[in-house]
Amino acid sequence: MDDGAVRLIGLDDVEALARGCSVLGTGGGGATYPAQLMLRQAIEDHGPVRLVGLEDLPPDGLVMPIGTIGAPTVGLEKLPSGRETSRIRDHVEAQLGAPVAAVMSVEIGGGNGVEPAARAAALCLPLVDADGMGRAFPEVQMVAMNVAGRQIGLVVLGDARGNLVSIRPIDADWGERIARAATTALGSTATEVDYVLRARDARGAVIEGTVTRAIAIGRAVEGAGDHPVAALVSELGAAVLVEGRIVDVERRTAGGFVRGSATIEEIGGGRTLRLEIQNENLVALEDGRLVASVPDLIAVLDTQTADAVPTEVLRYGHRVTVIAFACDPLWRSPRGLEVAGPRAFGYEVDYVPVEELHVLT
Amino acid sequence: MDDGAVRLIGLDDVEALARGCSVLGTGGGGATYPAQLMLRQAIEDHGPVRLVGLEDLPPDGLVMPIGTIGAPTVGLEKLPSGRETSRIRDHVEAQLGAPVAAVMSVEIGGGNGVEPAARAAALCLPLVDADGMGRAFPEVQMVAMNVAGRQIGLVVLGDARGNLVSIRPIDADWGERIARAATTALGSTATEVDYVLRARDARGAVIEGTVTRAIAIGRAVEGAGDHPVAALVSELGAAVLVEGRIVDVERRTAGGFVRGSATIEEIGGGRTLRLEIQNENLVALEDGRLVASVPDLIAVLDTQTADAVPTEVLRYGHRVTVIAFACDPLWRSPRGLEVAGPRAFGYEVDYVPVEELHVLT
Repeated sequence: MDDGAVRLIGLDDVEALARGCSVLGTGGGGATYPAQLMLRQAIEDHGPVRLVGLEDLPPDGLVMPIGTIGAPTVGLEKLPSGRETSRIRDHVEAQLGAPVAAVMSVEIGGGNGVEPAARAAALCLPLVDADGMGRAFPEVQMVAMNVAGRQIGLVVLGDARGNLVSIRPIDADWGERIARAATTALGSTATEVDYVLRARDARGAVIEGTVTRAIAIGRAVEGAGDHPVAALVSELGAAVLVEGRIVDVERRTAGGFVRGSATIEEIGGGRTLRLEIQNENLVALEDGRLVASVPDLIAVLDTQTADAVPTEVLRYGHRVTVIAFACDPLWRSPRGLEVAGPRAFGYEVDYVPVEELHVLT
Repeated sequence: MDDGAVRLIGLDDVEALARGCSVLGTGGGGATYPAQLMLRQAIEDHGPVRLVGLEDLPPDGLVMPIGTIGAPTVGLEKLPSGRETSRIRDHVEAQLGAPVAAVMSVEIGGGNGVEPAARAAALCLPLVDADGMGRAFPEVQMVAMNVAGRQIGLVVLGDARGNLVSIRPIDADWGERIARAATTALGSTATEVDYVLRARDARGAVIEGTVTRAIAIGRAVEGAGDHPVAALVSELGAAVLVEGRIVDVERRTAGGFVRGSATIEEIGGGRTLRLEIQNENLVALEDGRLVASVPDLIAVLDTQTADAVPTEVLRYGHRVTVIAFACDPLWRSPRGLEVAGPRAFGYEVDYVPVEELHVLT
């Protein structure tokens, strides 16, 4: 895919995109399998998805960030109907008085990195090669647009039944609070749009190139032969935290989130790693010592296939390799850490970049 | 106040209106004291409130039912700012593409019967002499408009901070579910508008004359001298269930409601009456036997003053007289009982009209 030319996401790209999004999801963002089915169907029905840069859009064109909000455990079983996308788009256009020019992933992680391509195809709109996180985070306000000082504006939720909820919160934290409660009422999963912004206002307020990056990550694994984890670690510049087996999983669906923890015991060694979870893998602890944390990315990989394991399907006995790698620099700014650093999740520790804790590959 | 002439609610009517609404609130609808202060201030600022019948409005004029949703325990302390009313009105007009012609109480009970007059004054709009219940009920879908088969349409919530939530539910039950969750997120109290309808569609779908009735109830007590409870019982055609003392109160604020129960022991007799509560007094039981239930009205009165006691301030030791009286006939229809009969609240009993259980005064 060359810059400047029209880039297309076709059927051949779906698996690589899903694989990359799964890794960038750090356990969250929802399962990629149903999202892949949605995207395959959408490409068959509407043709390949046009992938565009911000520079390809009219400066006044509205970019509509979209994603699934809620508990991934529920999202696994309760799928969007597809009709909510156009219903939400119509509402956004009526409220903002301008047409939507392109769709963007709120977060590139997990199914939320894949579904927006399907939604773009269904709306006959291009997909912006960018997202709001460069990964997945559990809460509405944890987006680059917020870090960059953009207003959240309208928050719109739609469910498969046809309910529509439109919120004008006074700030992003209220947006999260109200949207989360409404999502729980809708059955703990919904399609969400927020931070709709004009293309000219998106530069510096979104993380660019992340769709292309996800596909590249997927391709690296696909071409890796017998050593997919090594290939992935090399592609990402990641640190291996532990290679082991899951010996304990504690998980509950509450308040619209999946919360819990997982313990991984090293194979052939005495080390144990504990991951704490709120939809995503938030922190990794070894004997109580922090070895990686948000906003850096922590992924649990199947040791054989290098498939990333979402938090909602972590299970006892699974052989996994846990890796960590650096987040986008935006998240390491003081405002970035305020929005999505360890303290934003209730951990009273200072953030230490993953490369200062480990020698990265 | 004569039919046909312009009727005004002035400062002299505020206390009688509040007293009547408190009785019709059956314990719910929110405290009337802060609502009285709001209304006095609004009348001082904007002049008396014009009280109109549906026949006084243009047939296409929008009637905007408004009320406070949430837990009355919270509503006692967390007051509206006043600005949410015009913000919601503006949103309704933009969404429906027509001006609001008049304000109506969603429910005539408690503060929710009084506040809308203040909101009407502040919007320089008339108040319709009608409401959606003829009493108070705890849930959004428990309104005459629903019984009459009208669509809930837009549900709009606003809080004192400036958050606005606009819901397009697929039906009234979903409206309640989503609005309740959003209200809880907003801090368990919010200003709500729903079932906006044109004046010509309101006939038969609202309970008319209830503002006038509330004022008349209040006047009956004001003019009663030393026997206010007797005067009230006579005005209402009510049955006295017990005259006694509150010996137990169990009350919690959960899920946006006040829930619990109160036990009243007869003075100079062995009888005890138990009231079960969800914001409002739902059922009265004597030795496990139902002696009154929704949709009929059950009010707890101070035995000395005949002031109705809201469920959020029931307290041990208070001398009270519990009365019950007949609801509007609309609630006794099969559809009315489906929406707000005992089974709608989880009681597996058949409704028996209060006058069949008691000889009414």
